[in-house]
Amino acid sequence: MAEEGRLKSLDALREKMGLPEKGPRADGRHNDEIRPVSIETGFHRPHQVLISCGDTKVICSASLENRVPQWRYGSGLGWLTAEYSMLPGATDKRTQRERGTIVSGRTQEIQRLIGRSLRNVVKLAGIGQCTIHIDCDVISADGGTRTASITGGFLALYSLIKASEKRFAMWPIIEPICAVSVGIVGGVPLLDLDYKEDSNAQVDGYAVMFNNGRFVDFGLSAEESMYTKEQFDKLVELAQKGIDEVFKVVVGQIEMIDSNYS
Amino acid sequence: MAEEGRLKSLDALREKMGLPEKGPRADGRHNDEIRPVSIETGFHRPHQVLISCGDTKVICSASLENRVPQWRYGSGLGWLTAEYSMLPGATDKRTQRERGTIVSGRTQEIQRLIGRSLRNVVKLAGIGQCTIHIDCDVISADGGTRTASITGGFLALYSLIKASEKRFAMWPIIEPICAVSVGIVGGVPLLDLDYKEDSNAQVDGYAVMFNNGRFVDFGLSAEESMYTKEQFDKLVELAQKGIDEVFKVVVGQIEMIDSNYS
Amino acid sequence: MAEEGRLKSLDALREKMGLPEKGPRADGRHNDEIRPVSIETGFHRPHQVLISCGDTKVICSASLENRVPQWRYGSGLGWLTAEYSMLPGATDKRTQRERGTIVSGRTQEIQRLIGRSLRNVVKLAGIGQCTIHIDCDVISADGGTRTASITGGFLALYSLIKASEKRFAMWPIIEPICAVSVGIVGGVPLLDLDYKEDSNAQVDGYAVMFNNGRFVDFGLSAEESMYTKEQFDKLVELAQKGIDEVFKVVVGQIEMIDSNYS
Amino acid sequence: MAEEGRLKSLDALREKMGLPEKGPRADGRHNDEIRPVSIETGFHRPHQVLISCGDTKVICSASLENRVPQWRYGSGLGWLTAEYSMLPGATDKRTQRERGTIVSGRTQEIQRLIGRSLRNVVKLAGIGQCTIHIDCDVISADGGTRTASITGGFLALYSLIKASEKRFAMWPIIEPICAVSVGIVGGVPLLDLDYKEDSNAQVDGYAVMFNNGRFVDFGLSAEESMYTKEQFDKLVELAQKGIDEVFKVVVGQIEMIDSNYS
Amino acid sequence: MAEEGRLKSLDALREKMGLPEKGPRADGRHNDEIRPVSIETGFHRPHQVLISCGDTKVICSASLENRVPQWRYGSGLGWLTAEYSMLPGATDKRTQRERGTIVSGRTQEIQRLIGRSLRNVVKLAGIGQCTIHIDCDVISADGGTRTASITGGFLALYSLIKASEKRFAMWPIIEPICAVSVGIVGGVPLLDLDYKEDSNAQVDGYAVMFNNGRFVDFGLSAEESMYTKEQFDKLVELAQKGIDEVFKVVVGQIEMIDSNYS
Amino acid sequence: MAEEGRLKSLDALREKMGLPEKGPRADGRHNDEIRPVSIETGFHRPHQVLISCGDTKVICSASLENRVPQWRYGSGLGWLTAEYSMLPGATDKRTQRERGTIVSGRTQEIQRLIGRSLRNVVKLAGIGQCTIHIDCDVISADGGTRTASITGGFLALYSLIKASEKRFAMWPIIEPICAVSVGIVGGVPLLDLDYKEDSNAQVDGYAVMFNNGRFVDFGLSAEESMYTKEQFDKLVELAQKGIDEVFKVVVGQIEMIDSNYS
Repeated sequence: MAEEGRLKSLDALREKMGLPEKGPRADGRHNDEIRPVSIETGFHRPHQVLISCGDTKVICSASLENRVPQWRYGSGLGWLTAEYSMLPGATDKRTQRERGTIVSGRTQEIQRLIGRSLRNVVKLAGIGQCTIHIDCDVISADGGTRTASITGGFLALYSLIKASEKRFAMWPIIEPICAVSVGIVGGVPLLDLDYKEDSNAQVDGYAVMFNNGRFVDFGLSAEESMYTKEQFDKLVELAQKGIDEVFKVVVGQIEMIDSNYS
Repeated sequence: MAEEGRLKSLDALREKMGLPEKGPRADGRHNDEIRPVSIETGFHRPHQVLISCGDTKVICSASLENRVPQWRYGSGLGWLTAEYSMLPGATDKRTQRERGTIVSGRTQEIQRLIGRSLRNVVKLAGIGQCTIHIDCDVISADGGTRTASITGGFLALYSLIKASEKRFAMWPIIEPICAVSVGIVGGVPLLDLDYKEDSNAQVDGYAVMFNNGRFVDFGLSAEESMYTKEQFDKLVELAQKGIDEVFKVVVGQIEMIDSNYS
Repeated sequence: MAEEGRLKSLDALREKMGLPEKGPRADGRHNDEIRPVSIETGFHRPHQVLISCGDTKVICSASLENRVPQWRYGSGLGWLTAEYSMLPGATDKRTQRERGTIVSGRTQEIQRLIGRSLRNVVKLAGIGQCTIHIDCDVISADGGTRTASITGGFLALYSLIKASEKRFAMWPIIEPICAVSVGIVGGVPLLDLDYKEDSNAQVDGYAVMFNNGRFVDFGLSAEESMYTKEQFDKLVELAQKGIDEVFKVVVGQIEMIDSNYS
Repeated sequence: MAEEGRLKSLDALREKMGLPEKGPRADGRHNDEIRPVSIETGFHRPHQVLISCGDTKVICSASLENRVPQWRYGSGLGWLTAEYSMLPGATDKRTQRERGTIVSGRTQEIQRLIGRSLRNVVKLAGIGQCTIHIDCDVISADGGTRTASITGGFLALYSLIKASEKRFAMWPIIEPICAVSVGIVGGVPLLDLDYKEDSNAQVDGYAVMFNNGRFVDFGLSAEESMYTKEQFDKLVELAQKGIDEVFKVVVGQIEMIDSNYS
Repeated sequence: MAEEGRLKSLDALREKMGLPEKGPRADGRHNDEIRPVSIETGFHRPHQVLISCGDTKVICSASLENRVPQWRYGSGLGWLTAEYSMLPGATDKRTQRERGTIVSGRTQEIQRLIGRSLRNVVKLAGIGQCTIHIDCDVISADGGTRTASITGGFLALYSLIKASEKRFAMWPIIEPICAVSVGIVGGVPLLDLDYKEDSNAQVDGYAVMFNNGRFVDFGLSAEESMYTKEQFDKLVELAQKGIDEVFKVVVGQIEMIDSNYS
Repeated sequence: MAEEGRLKSLDALREKMGLPEKGPRADGRHNDEIRPVSIETGFHRPHQVLISCGDTKVICSASLENRVPQWRYGSGLGWLTAEYSMLPGATDKRTQRERGTIVSGRTQEIQRLIGRSLRNVVKLAGIGQCTIHIDCDVISADGGTRTASITGGFLALYSLIKASEKRFAMWPIIEPICAVSVGIVGGVPLLDLDYKEDSNAQVDGYAVMFNNGRFVDFGLSAEESMYTKEQFDKLVELAQKGIDEVFKVVVGQIEMIDSNYS
């Protein structure tokens, strides 16, 4: 009943805002529609961002450390690394904390993606012998936590760089980045899957992109299934549409951070 | 200057609210004064609580699992256990995530205290063969994170039990609990130390109590120092005063949770 | 000089075999040309395969275990899982053995890809409560070890299933699978990168496919770079071409295994 | 029968030594009576101490290392750290050895207490860039192992410092320290609980003190129970009485060590 | 000077006891002479043995557990396993505790030898579905700790079995066992090496034997050296002589344990 | 039937080669006969050796690292260390990979033996501040993997040293080494046990030797059994015979490596 009430109020909101008729997905979205994205920078600490993509909420933090990993000594280059974690209470069934033990393959794969993506937007020669740490902690998980982490992580990074600008010989950020998820559920290509959709997906993927259709990372995996070239192309198209929507929110946040420092 | 501005606005607030003259501590508090406590229940997940004690912020979650640890099989008793963690961005200097490695002694000591304290308020025979998990994740650390975790953890627990009430043959909560920290800095006994005070404390302690002066847990440790029986007694007195203040906020939250379920 | 000699003999071979003029790559390949693939099934143990893609050599083994992981009990479904490892001597500079420590993110990511890919070709309901283990141990590493592992792993799997056919109520393999790598080096899209090319790639990816252009997994990551939609499309096209070449070798091996068991 | 025999011989001893009538506890002790304490310094190695508190026996060793932990480099200060361990055969039911795995929270809590307590008696500026290691290995466990470890650890430390005196610019020991346990069993406050009493305690605590009523560490935890301020005060009083008794033995040992080195 | 004093008093003792002239080794022993062996059973716990071989002292404990390892379920056979550990203070330079980390190869090799040796003296079918744990903790290390552990471990085992005799359908001990070390130092074959001799040995070995020259385990390793068949034979002869000496002490202890239980 | 076929073809081979009548062992060998040994150097990487002893196959690699372990700094001496591992598919029942966890005692014992043995053939002062790594990876296991690893490891080492000869001030290899296994099965002393024999052995051992009967390492362990001095002497004799056979193959390989570099 709680679920029913939530959906009703989404309908009312839709009508009030003069939105087009609701789509066929369980929460009333159209197949090519993302969930509402909202971002709060300076959440409780200076470079801490709370990003919400529907009911998915991630706290992203950026920190600067005055050293680089040992294998990077003397290179003149900085480094950027990311960690991803779920708060145990972020899911309906409690998720076990990954500590005192090996970190799961899923977690490692996600944090490697976040780090690799964000290294594409920073000139590592421009930050000196420093390491930037991006920490993404999911406090509520409803699908799309990895892509929300990349988008939120970028803004935490931007806030940190802006605040530390004077330390760097040049402005080290190349351009903004954001990410969305795509997938195929019941044979239908969808944009920005929530947890229930994700659990039933035959194909599951993500795109990390710069503005204007340039790619940074892209992946598309079948789960006990396969996909044709036509479906592949459709998912790429959906991803590009979703990226455009998310960029609008990201750009608004960048302006806000800039105005705080001018 | 940011710090200076923050303190000035605290002064203004004090005046506007008709508060007594400010005390000798760096943030204007008197020695027997706690920082403002605010609590948000149902933060982003049903039994997720955000507790703020000044700039210390902790997310506390409670979850119910339909099994008990192996050593508890067949006992007819439930179990309650707690985990405590710092988000890496919670501190000025990034805190390393405790994973892929042993959990530090400090963390273990704190989470053992939280679990032991909260087991004193639950009839473990009343919850059947279930485990209650309390997860305390610090998102901003400014001293007193262990005591904030106990108070916030109690409210997450209360919310979970209230929502699951019908599952239990009897109401399993004995009575509310809360906690405060005390210490001696520069020879002066203080209530509710912030991070800077805590770093310079000669003596550092906490009290976990029920209402009306009954104790659940109490600890007082000198750090390259010692304390007399007079100082000991003064710190006990401060703790009792602090507990009374925190209880006012806790009781308000209990009423709110109750009203949500009536 | 050893290197020079090796390249000369490749030229001679090319001429002798009436091959088209050599291409612009360091080893004489054209940009859309794969390295020679050869496969030896029943290497030293029954379902042990040695796959060579140029100087990359991987031993792939398949084993059947009469139980499933705990989370799969009572599901009626089997499971397939893969492990990937480098022999320390497989690289010019010795690679440290991953033991007594956490497994690296790279290794985990690769073995998750191998397992996910191969689960797409097996009806898990058709193998009963069994686990199939695919072990891929690289004995010489010259780029493309993950894709060689998928192709070789498929043949080890096929050999195991063929030998155990009578145990299963139905033939559980859906169809053959294979994989190739692609990438962009110095702005040029290339098929099947060797180690030197891979180390200098701006974009690095792989495709795992069924026959006839149907996809199972696809990934494309920029490394401190980005790629346009045109480059993206070109890499997809190269991958499809490479897959067709590798399939010829795979089909030949399948016929050989079949003939051993008829 | 063995137990019965043991108690009888305690009665005989009591009579022979002209001791007051035996008390209400299972072993004939009064509620405010400690068990016999005996200490053997130079047990089998130079700074190895065997301390017995009733049937609790702990081997305490002190060693000096010519370096400090990395975070202490260049501080001009030394460090003191402690480790606590149970020999597997120290308990009726074999205790599992803590190795190849994480150290339990209980062990960590105890060894942190021992280290913190003993750091209060050493001028860390007085020992130069050295680390003192205190190792406490329980060979027979009958309650009060943590407090016996502190007392025995102090004497091992004293013996080490005395033997190394010439290395230090000044005498680095501030003053002697010792520890006792207290608790409430069946509503009755008791001093120095044995294992059976400890297992049934509603409240369980310890005091670490200097001579003349000055405190170093104090803790009091309810176990599924609580305690009033009156009980709290009574336990503090018992602790002070016990500390006075233990000090008599400690002082005797100090004199003996001193005489060995004069 | 302390060392010199110790050796002088050994000389005096030798003379007083009418012993033959002292030998060429640093402590006055002849090449085929073992150090004094003494054994204290029921050290501080019922099946705890303190064995001394010169300045090497090991606490050996035996415990009985009412279950077998999982791989032994339903076999009708019991199991015996051993653990070996050094107290950190057992050596002149503190030995790091093996915990929170992997157990060293040396430790594993030694405890596998102890377990394997003692399994040869127990009928595992005769102890039912039980596990016997032998724990050997070195409290002072002066060479020969592994062989002292086997001899002491046997007596702890014997004491445990004697006390539990009624639980078993038959007497499960086959016959007594003991062990000695041998080695070559400066080209000279020696029996029962102390730490200084062991550190300079070219060849280092041990024998574990039943009475009357029957072998259970034998090992002989060169360290950056080699040995001839003649040296090999000489070391076997020395080992047999040493075993005969140790057996005298072992047999005395067995009689004492037997008399305690008759 | 496959097994039967294999044995028949061995018989045919035996006849064709004019071999003496077949012996009493399951594969037709006499009690003092080793299995065929073949060695392939430069397997797929320069200093990679594939050694086959019957159906036991081990890949041995040697690598040179330009540093020594920390405890060896400034000693002027190099170091040699070995690692041993089983590919999971090397056994009929899949062997679990030893990673992300502690390395088993068996593995540690074997790799310590390989390292210790090979250190006896290298002048560690002659290789400067370098570490030689010997990696032995079993790809098919049929008994005798540890001794095959020593023999194969020596040839990988020889190949590496020969190729790096110019780096060293002197030729650092002292002399060739090889190893064989021996044991007692059903009361009969045997040379070079295969897996089935090894599983049923009462006594199990190995010898590592130089040419002409000089020993480097020797071990002989009873498994729930014991052995007499006569059996001991017989096993030593068998080992010496086996070593002579293996040396013939080793010497041939050395000549081949030498000729590649002259």
